[in-house]
Amino acid sequence: MTVKKRRMARTLRIGDVTVGGGAPVVVQSMTKTDTRDVAATVRQIRTLEDCGCEIVRIAVPDKEAAEALSSIKRGVHIPIIADIHFDHRLAIAAVGAGVDGLRINPGNISQKKHIAAIVRAAKPRGIPIRIGVNAGSLPKSADGGASLPERMVEAALQQIRLLESMDFDLIKVSLKAFDVPSTIEAYQFMARKTLYPLHLGITEAGLPRAGIIRSAVGIGVLLHQGIGDTIRVSLTGDPEEEVVAAYEILKSLNLRERGPTLLSCPTCGRCEVDLVSLAKAVEDRLSTIDRSIKVAVMGCVVNGPGEARSADVGIACGKGRGAIFRKGEVVRTVEEKDFLEVLMEEVVKI
Amino acid sequence: MTVKKRRMARTLRIGDVTVGGGAPVVVQSMTKTDTRDVAATVRQIRTLEDCGCEIVRIAVPDKEAAEALSSIKRGVHIPIIADIHFDHRLAIAAVGAGVDGLRINPGNISQKKHIAAIVRAAKPRGIPIRIGVNAGSLPKSADGGASLPERMVEAALQQIRLLESMDFDLIKVSLKAFDVPSTIEAYQFMARKTLYPLHLGITEAGLPRAGIIRSAVGIGVLLHQGIGDTIRVSLTGDPEEEVVAAYEILKSLNLRERGPTLLSCPTCGRCEVDLVSLAKAVEDRLSTIDRSIKVAVMGCVVNGPGEARSADVGIACGKGRGAIFRKGEVVRTVEEKDFLEVLMEEVVKI
Repeated sequence: MTVKKRRMARTLRIGDVTVGGGAPVVVQSMTKTDTRDVAATVRQIRTLEDCGCEIVRIAVPDKEAAEALSSIKRGVHIPIIADIHFDHRLAIAAVGAGVDGLRINPGNISQKKHIAAIVRAAKPRGIPIRIGVNAGSLPKSADGGASLPERMVEAALQQIRLLESMDFDLIKVSLKAFDVPSTIEAYQFMARKTLYPLHLGITEAGLPRAGIIRSAVGIGVLLHQGIGDTIRVSLTGDPEEEVVAAYEILKSLNLRERGPTLLSCPTCGRCEVDLVSLAKAVEDRLSTIDRSIKVAVMGCVVNGPGEARSADVGIACGKGRGAIFRKGEVVRTVEEKDFLEVLMEEVVKI
Repeated sequence: MTVKKRRMARTLRIGDVTVGGGAPVVVQSMTKTDTRDVAATVRQIRTLEDCGCEIVRIAVPDKEAAEALSSIKRGVHIPIIADIHFDHRLAIAAVGAGVDGLRINPGNISQKKHIAAIVRAAKPRGIPIRIGVNAGSLPKSADGGASLPERMVEAALQQIRLLESMDFDLIKVSLKAFDVPSTIEAYQFMARKTLYPLHLGITEAGLPRAGIIRSAVGIGVLLHQGIGDTIRVSLTGDPEEEVVAAYEILKSLNLRERGPTLLSCPTCGRCEVDLVSLAKAVEDRLSTIDRSIKVAVMGCVVNGPGEARSADVGIACGKGRGAIFRKGEVVRTVEEKDFLEVLMEEVVKI
């Protein structure tokens, strides 16, 4: 079972990645290195590629950063998006450097002549533009909206109209706020008002623990409603954590597969083995496996056999002994000292 | 802004805690100690109380565990719920030991005479019973349901009818599965079919990282729809982590307040200070503060001033200097070495 029917957005190509039109939800992140440091930025993007990042965004605060983009582009495999604020000339320079997409912020680039100059650069090359609205930098022109979600949507719609008036429609939209219900409402409005693909995110979500939870709730609610074509989890921390969290959100709704899934019980006073250590050891060993496989580590007879049976491979532990399941059948009964090895043997067989 | 109108469930009292009827969503956890070890179990519950846990569930696997409950009850302040499987006599013993609630599993206690015996013990004392359905232990009698959510709901409805036929209505219901969309659908069905309070959770969600995300998505989607009166995040790990995660989920939807909220930017190539270290240091210092206060730690001028202004206290950093905001106004400009101390001074003033 997965989410309800997905909203059918228009299709965009960012480099060789398809966003929208029913394509799998794309995972993005953003570099945190100094963009002018080409080696460090390329290194970070390659690490992100290894984690499954499919598009990466790079801040372009000045001309030197824009110039670094072409070298960065040559060193990486995934499409890159230039993140532009304040100065439209940096967007034009980024397009010249060969980026695959642009993000501009209506809160700080909104003059018609500036947008027109960006479109003149992007359109002939088929470079999509994300209209990236942030609650922290809304344009004055959107003040008419009564609520924060309305002001965010209004800011995006003003820029959509401007781009459309220039016959440009390679558009993606994001509407990010820290407040999760406001963000959800903004995207819901926007999903009804346009067919453009939506990039989801909760902004300034904080350090990993709280930031992951805010992002999972906000992005999760929208994805479950069929809204969202690409996601970025914003965390004050390593960008790899953003990618790992993004996949976990998508996996939880059965929207993407990536690597093994560990199902393990929380343990309770009924558990007679050291299940936490076993689960951690299994997770460790599974981290070297790429296949989407479901492994269950269960501590007692209440849900143990049922859940172990439903996984590809599972163990239901009792006192000192455990039953190993493969594809729904008990294949072996083992002693506690052999739990990990025998379970992993069965995983490898699959 | 918060979630849409909450489903108005009937009101239950678990000890001195109200569940349902529009009361704040209650946070639960479960002990992981050996229940027969009274000292360890009391110690764990007291730690949970310190984290804000409002109800705690305790496994009662045997007679000795049931007998330990009265001593445990005397050592703690929050209501305790006995988790009963297989043997209805343990439920009766737990009621005798003074527990505030029972959880029974229709997958392993379903005979009418056994349920009747439990009701005879619980009813005169006003002890509520949770019908706790788990996908891993569904009763055969629910096999008629076409889908997993339908089978889970059917299992609960059968037991609801049985309890109602005995004129017992102090009922709570949970419908937990590992599959998040199935769990959501089961609760949605149930929310339409009954007025009883719902206890939300994703079961066997795994180790903290993945388990927290699965729980945040599943519980978050339901809470956002107004469904859910009490929640438990199930993690293979320390129960305190479950409580902390539960509050973060509730805070993200503005359903509960608990302690400070840190809003911090993910940093990017535009950031010219060590924002991650600053954010971590601020989080550390905030952990000693109980008040619900919103603190923003922002790395640049794009969203920095906007977000810092919207928080109770905030800092928007630039190169080597930062502007400190209090209640929307810049109160000071400080050098990087003073960021933490000055920010915390302003926090303390509030």
